[in-house]
Amino acid sequence: MSQQAKEHGIKVGVIGAGGRMGRMLIEAVQDNLQTTLNAAIERQGSSLVGADAGEVAAIGRLDVQIVDDLEAVISDIDVLIDFSLPDATEQNMQICAANNVAMVIGTTGFNEQQEKVLKEASKQIAIIYAGNYSTGVNLSLKLLGMAAKAFGTDADVEVIEAHHKHKIDAPSGTAYMMAEAVAEARGQNLKDVAVYGREGQTGAREAGTIGIHAIRGGEIIGDHTVMFIADGEVVEITHRARARMTFAAGAVRAATWVIKQEVGQYNMQDVLGLND
Amino acid sequence: MSQQAKEHGIKVGVIGAGGRMGRMLIEAVQDNLQTTLNAAIERQGSSLVGADAGEVAAIGRLDVQIVDDLEAVISDIDVLIDFSLPDATEQNMQICAANNVAMVIGTTGFNEQQEKVLKEASKQIAIIYAGNYSTGVNLSLKLLGMAAKAFGTDADVEVIEAHHKHKIDAPSGTAYMMAEAVAEARGQNLKDVAVYGREGQTGAREAGTIGIHAIRGGEIIGDHTVMFIADGEVVEITHRARARMTFAAGAVRAATWVIKQEVGQYNMQDVLGLND
Amino acid sequence: MSQQAKEHGIKVGVIGAGGRMGRMLIEAVQDNLQTTLNAAIERQGSSLVGADAGEVAAIGRLDVQIVDDLEAVISDIDVLIDFSLPDATEQNMQICAANNVAMVIGTTGFNEQQEKVLKEASKQIAIIYAGNYSTGVNLSLKLLGMAAKAFGTDADVEVIEAHHKHKIDAPSGTAYMMAEAVAEARGQNLKDVAVYGREGQTGAREAGTIGIHAIRGGEIIGDHTVMFIADGEVVEITHRARARMTFAAGAVRAATWVIKQEVGQYNMQDVLGLND
Amino acid sequence: MSQQAKEHGIKVGVIGAGGRMGRMLIEAVQDNLQTTLNAAIERQGSSLVGADAGEVAAIGRLDVQIVDDLEAVISDIDVLIDFSLPDATEQNMQICAANNVAMVIGTTGFNEQQEKVLKEASKQIAIIYAGNYSTGVNLSLKLLGMAAKAFGTDADVEVIEAHHKHKIDAPSGTAYMMAEAVAEARGQNLKDVAVYGREGQTGAREAGTIGIHAIRGGEIIGDHTVMFIADGEVVEITHRARARMTFAAGAVRAATWVIKQEVGQYNMQDVLGLND
Repeated sequence: MSQQAKEHGIKVGVIGAGGRMGRMLIEAVQDNLQTTLNAAIERQGSSLVGADAGEVAAIGRLDVQIVDDLEAVISDIDVLIDFSLPDATEQNMQICAANNVAMVIGTTGFNEQQEKVLKEASKQIAIIYAGNYSTGVNLSLKLLGMAAKAFGTDADVEVIEAHHKHKIDAPSGTAYMMAEAVAEARGQNLKDVAVYGREGQTGAREAGTIGIHAIRGGEIIGDHTVMFIADGEVVEITHRARARMTFAAGAVRAATWVIKQEVGQYNMQDVLGLND
Repeated sequence: MSQQAKEHGIKVGVIGAGGRMGRMLIEAVQDNLQTTLNAAIERQGSSLVGADAGEVAAIGRLDVQIVDDLEAVISDIDVLIDFSLPDATEQNMQICAANNVAMVIGTTGFNEQQEKVLKEASKQIAIIYAGNYSTGVNLSLKLLGMAAKAFGTDADVEVIEAHHKHKIDAPSGTAYMMAEAVAEARGQNLKDVAVYGREGQTGAREAGTIGIHAIRGGEIIGDHTVMFIADGEVVEITHRARARMTFAAGAVRAATWVIKQEVGQYNMQDVLGLND
Repeated sequence: MSQQAKEHGIKVGVIGAGGRMGRMLIEAVQDNLQTTLNAAIERQGSSLVGADAGEVAAIGRLDVQIVDDLEAVISDIDVLIDFSLPDATEQNMQICAANNVAMVIGTTGFNEQQEKVLKEASKQIAIIYAGNYSTGVNLSLKLLGMAAKAFGTDADVEVIEAHHKHKIDAPSGTAYMMAEAVAEARGQNLKDVAVYGREGQTGAREAGTIGIHAIRGGEIIGDHTVMFIADGEVVEITHRARARMTFAAGAVRAATWVIKQEVGQYNMQDVLGLND
Repeated sequence: MSQQAKEHGIKVGVIGAGGRMGRMLIEAVQDNLQTTLNAAIERQGSSLVGADAGEVAAIGRLDVQIVDDLEAVISDIDVLIDFSLPDATEQNMQICAANNVAMVIGTTGFNEQQEKVLKEASKQIAIIYAGNYSTGVNLSLKLLGMAAKAFGTDADVEVIEAHHKHKIDAPSGTAYMMAEAVAEARGQNLKDVAVYGREGQTGAREAGTIGIHAIRGGEIIGDHTVMFIADGEVVEITHRARARMTFAAGAVRAATWVIKQEVGQYNMQDVLGLND
């Protein structure tokens, strides 16, 4: 699809255009038939400022130069995708709100002040804020809540995740989100019921607890299984990520959805119609 | 729990008290704290007529004699559980409707006439009619519908079931129910899209089809997995039955629910609150 | 098969005839076409002494009275199956050695003195001594050693086991045996490389370690998976126990094998021909 | 590692240097610390003849020009890797045999004449001939043979493979190899016992058969599971390919092994030491 043909598509800007996630977002924007890249932003001082965003992403020249100032390009875009750091995203939310540009935010680790800015901004623009943009993960979270409600306390729940050997923390953020979806549906606080690792004289399993296990090895992109173990039957919900690109593609799908929404804050389950 | 203590519980009758399913139902009725066995019925001519239902079920004397005439005991019960054959169930529905006794029906293979009797009876009494009474299977059916809607045509769906080596048909009824839940959610007719077995020069996978695979071996009670295979991620929903008792226990749970309902026809997803 | 028909079969004695494992062993002896129960022993003071072993095992009268003195019946048997406690097994080994009766031992937790008695006894009789008598577990142990050698340090190894909620210790003995089979094949000491549970800032996975995870829930009899995770591929070896009877049947199979062997100590892999 | 530093490494030639597998082989040769690419061959008439092999493989200039005549470069190499077509490989075997160059062959579909050439050539040079060069697949084949022998006819065997939606045949070659490994160990002919797909009134499972199931969907690179289903337990051996590169890396590993061998024909299990 030529840039020409996409001229009337949804105009997207990407923050952190030179980073690993930024490059994938740029590729995903170009892959999606409804969207076109119109702005690419990096931090001040990056050696990539001035380079062509498409060439940096290794998908061929796009004639979109990477800039270091969002305000300089804000009028060129309909929606901004921001997977960066809390401080940067805080500023970007204020700029988007002032310029009536929708946002898709994948940044994590907001402090209270930043949560407040998010809340204020979402009174002026439509914002999707989610920890994970894959269809499968968000679907799984929804299914887990339903399963937890249907089984109630009749099933023992265990979460098993597997990631590559380079990962430096455990369990994964997605595993926490899944365990929380179960805990919340059962009216529990995850901190009170999570069990990590079992060794030695553990005693019998305490009812209502949630076991969480982190497997590490090789180059596994990310697998998650949640088991609901009742006395005579077991239900398992498993998600396997086979390519990191799936997260970027989900964010772009979210961008095509958010520009049609009223102002407000949304999550990926809204995008997928799982909350209808 | 003594018979005495359960006297004021829900009074249950069981059809086919001498069969394999009937015996499990009797045990499940006695295991459930809210229910008590008050009637056990077998077909005319069975050598078990006159025997104690508890002794036949190998759970000890219950002082409930097996009879061959439902009408003789219909006034002793609040709800009838019937996992038998279509002709027998047709008669039983008429007797229950006339006597205002609720029903839990697990009989399969109704013809049009019998479907009509079911419809008429459910105008006078509350009836649960389901092909499978396990919590896990019914939950899975609900989850499958949601997953099929969320992925739409973006995921290829494959159903894999495994049963014991003695099973003489394939795929299992539950596998069909699962494939139908997916097809229905996608607006398809299962017959048009089901693929059984692949061998030789098959050509590339046709979009929208549903592959169904039947594994047979050993004494596997019943495992079912449905895979939603998208380009960069896979979601799997798995159900494993570990004990046949779980189906009987589900039917008894349904009996405790149905006696509180208005007249009408319900299914197990209603019992589990999955349709709220 | 009548007791008559089995008269010329292999004559088996069972220690701990009134315990849970003893009862299953008695049933397995009667199920095996080559063996017949000729002696059943319980500890002094047990109320079951004098009872019929078949009736205690709920498989019908066998006309074998439970006794409390092995020496009184030692001349009636070809092989003794002993799944009891170290002190009892120590005495039984001495009696069998003196009377030229082969043994199948499933007792665990021998101290040094008892190990020595085992060593001495196996100079006079054939003894199988194993921590687990299932074909599948022993096969898996063998396969794990081969896989560990083939991958060397190119694969990260993780062990995941699942057991019922009542189990009071973790990981399972079988999980330890599996992890040890891997460690041994790689020339490692399991204590130096085992990792139990990962939570928080763990850092990247240390090469050569073995992760061990214990899932608990419901009534799972015992599942074990060992993953060999290389950069571009994964091999998994999984064992699922579906019925506890499988362990008793394996011990009886071992009994039919051991009576044909020269004096010496053997394990279940010898019985299965895995060491040829 | 500079080309300089590898000068004294094992000198490798690659047939089909411009094809998908050829490019991966070139990358794998350069990734392996013991090997260096010294020749790259394409068919006559290819537009890539004359291009730099490294640039074609997108790994940077290697100063190895692609040629269309193996004999012109045969004296520059120690070992030739050939994943091409039977007719081409037939000629290449004759050239290698005449020039004392070892071979790693991944070509499939030899006719009788070509099998004969292979046999003759392996009297003069060392040749590895294998249908699959991954460590995991070859290990799995070995494990399957052992498992089949240990269980004998006590376990029902089912093979389940999964591949991407573009695959036009079923089951996969690897699935056939796995089923054959089981059949051979049990003294069976696969054609007599293979069952593909089960639908309708199948009757009970026939003892000794091997069920083979082909799942298709998304972009799955290749998963294979073989189940040994005994009455009370199940053993599963699973292989998951996560990256196609693993097959190329295995072929290069084979190349480093074959140059140290006596003349003769070998397979990948020999390379991995699984036949010792």
